[in-house]
Amino acid sequence: MSWKLTAADLSDLARGATLLGTGGGGDPYIGKMLVEQVLGTGSITILDPDDLADDLFVIPTAQMGAPTVMIEKIPAGFEATLALRTLEDHLGRKADATMPIECGGINSMIPLLVAAETGLPVVDGDGMGRAFPELSMETFAVYGVHGSPLALAGERGERVIIDTGDDDRQMEWLARGITIRLGGVGHIAEYAMSGADVKRTAVPRTISMALALGRAIRLAREAHSSPFEAIAETLSTTLYSHVRELFVGKVADVERRTTDGFAKGRAVILPLDPSSDDRFEIAFQNENLIAHHNGDVVAIVPDLICVVDHETAEPITTEGLRYGQRVRVLGISTPAMMRTQAALQAFGPTAFGLTEPFMPVEGETAAAEAALEFAATARGVGVAEEAHA
Amino acid sequence: MSWKLTAADLSDLARGATLLGTGGGGDPYIGKMLVEQVLGTGSITILDPDDLADDLFVIPTAQMGAPTVMIEKIPAGFEATLALRTLEDHLGRKADATMPIECGGINSMIPLLVAAETGLPVVDGDGMGRAFPELSMETFAVYGVHGSPLALAGERGERVIIDTGDDDRQMEWLARGITIRLGGVGHIAEYAMSGADVKRTAVPRTISMALALGRAIRLAREAHSSPFEAIAETLSTTLYSHVRELFVGKVADVERRTTDGFAKGRAVILPLDPSSDDRFEIAFQNENLIAHHNGDVVAIVPDLICVVDHETAEPITTEGLRYGQRVRVLGISTPAMMRTQAALQAFGPTAFGLTEPFMPVEGETAAAEAALEFAATARGVGVAEEAHA
Repeated sequence: MSWKLTAADLSDLARGATLLGTGGGGDPYIGKMLVEQVLGTGSITILDPDDLADDLFVIPTAQMGAPTVMIEKIPAGFEATLALRTLEDHLGRKADATMPIECGGINSMIPLLVAAETGLPVVDGDGMGRAFPELSMETFAVYGVHGSPLALAGERGERVIIDTGDDDRQMEWLARGITIRLGGVGHIAEYAMSGADVKRTAVPRTISMALALGRAIRLAREAHSSPFEAIAETLSTTLYSHVRELFVGKVADVERRTTDGFAKGRAVILPLDPSSDDRFEIAFQNENLIAHHNGDVVAIVPDLICVVDHETAEPITTEGLRYGQRVRVLGISTPAMMRTQAALQAFGPTAFGLTEPFMPVEGETAAAEAALEFAATARGVGVAEEAHA
Repeated sequence: MSWKLTAADLSDLARGATLLGTGGGGDPYIGKMLVEQVLGTGSITILDPDDLADDLFVIPTAQMGAPTVMIEKIPAGFEATLALRTLEDHLGRKADATMPIECGGINSMIPLLVAAETGLPVVDGDGMGRAFPELSMETFAVYGVHGSPLALAGERGERVIIDTGDDDRQMEWLARGITIRLGGVGHIAEYAMSGADVKRTAVPRTISMALALGRAIRLAREAHSSPFEAIAETLSTTLYSHVRELFVGKVADVERRTTDGFAKGRAVILPLDPSSDDRFEIAFQNENLIAHHNGDVVAIVPDLICVVDHETAEPITTEGLRYGQRVRVLGISTPAMMRTQAALQAFGPTAFGLTEPFMPVEGETAAAEAALEFAATARGVGVAEEAHA
């Protein structure tokens, strides 16, 4: 069912989107302020994907760049809408709605900013089901909708259109080159698709999930109950049904470098008890990619590895990691449509150069059950066969 | 007057274009082979700029990249025409003709390749009057026609459109970023303009000049007469009326590096007589920029600094420079429309970070005469006032 989002929802949404950013995705705080400024006392219509007319024309919008740059280089505000308009002009067709390509981090907010500026509704879903560092890492692409043509806009009104046909990795490569030359941040419109495509290829209801997560954490704090239980309870009703505490400790070391337009690095977390030999380590490329506990893999992309404050459950981005922070690390299972062979090829461990194989954070048995359930819904192309195989 | 160019003209044109490449512009040899292959026994119509209808629609075409890469990365052949078609689609208007943006080097050939592929005529003129390393260094831009929107095509059919409004330097910056990510070479269509714009902003008849220069050198060799006298005689009837021998010697040292998509470096030429203390040095960024003789500037951009074989006058590009080559260095004056204050700002010494001021290679008095003559023709905007000031 469609619903209305107002400025009062934005803080909760930002909190939930930061959690789904799994360390990256860019801090939604600046995006939230931009939306508030334009939205005022108005509201944005959020469309449930199941309600979409098959011929609805959807143009997703987003920001791209290194999160470390995004927090220093504030957008002028018009760029994402300019990207949308540029793609509309190029395609000769007006969008009926926009949508996130990424529900984690700042890209939860960019389509809302476009909606507030244009009056367009926003589809409740996205193509990453979290945050990923590259434009080709989309369930859209995995299930047959390609990113090209992509429109990219800069803060001085620069407009770029990139068309690499079905080659979404080459599209990412060229768009990244432009983004670097724009100073590290660009705004984009891409993966234009029909309502039927959305239903087939998008991870559904990730805006409402982010909002529910952020709200549950806040309400638990206000009620002096456990925000971690609130997270688990909220997720249990979604496609992200399993959450597990992977570690509790203190941030002991953070290495970060901005290379090739990405924030890459690693964080070491040691136990609160200094006499313990335990060691927990997270490697990231914008987002957290893999977590090792005493050398063993305990969670790996595309599952979510989320670092949060050990008491309040406030999510902490990789650029927010500081020496001495007391944190909990949560592992959250991703939906079955993000774990098919085709999906893992697009954004699984090997897509990031990792040699470790994917292993579901909730264990093989629970994962197999979820895959069967997913197959039964027939969402995704040719996935039913794969899950039953 | 319009004329027909055939495959028999291409070797002479390539030789002349290499001379006008002033060390850079990319070796026309590969471009010549591509044109020959498509043209066969056909011909290409070359349009004299003075004959153009004011509302003729011209889309110039070119290759961009580092010459050092261009000689190793052969184009598939279709890229420049794909760039033209991409820009036509974007603008919603078919081109009536194409034109070089650069008469020196390989870009003398690319519009001919497009002409051979499409049947379009080619306008006899260009926007550099030689070769320059950057897309913003155009008389077109100096006199009010801007490069955006630019279309760029890659060898795997990638298509990119860049629109930076009136900011041609930002257009160059973004297109260079794409070109680097395409492996160092891209093909472009840009500076779309009317016939009236061509007459106002292009350096006229530079294709026929390149052809005449190449032919004169060949005929002089065949007649065992001096190719250097033939060059001087040919230039005397053009807007490039002064040529001066700057040095004769042996290449003693060449430093070259490919940085930021450009071939940068310097060459040292020492006298043939080893007892002499004379030292001649040329610095280049794709093209030769400045020549010092014993520490004194003897020629500087935008004037042409051309290194040629000391006997045959065969032009030598910077990537063709080798230790021990016996060479002559020629300084050739550029047309007055390339030496106005606005022109020098776009592609004079300071545009390359040089601190030395421009000084005409033929001396101040002769240059002043040429400027007055130029002003009298009223080619260029507001130049008459400047020349008389």
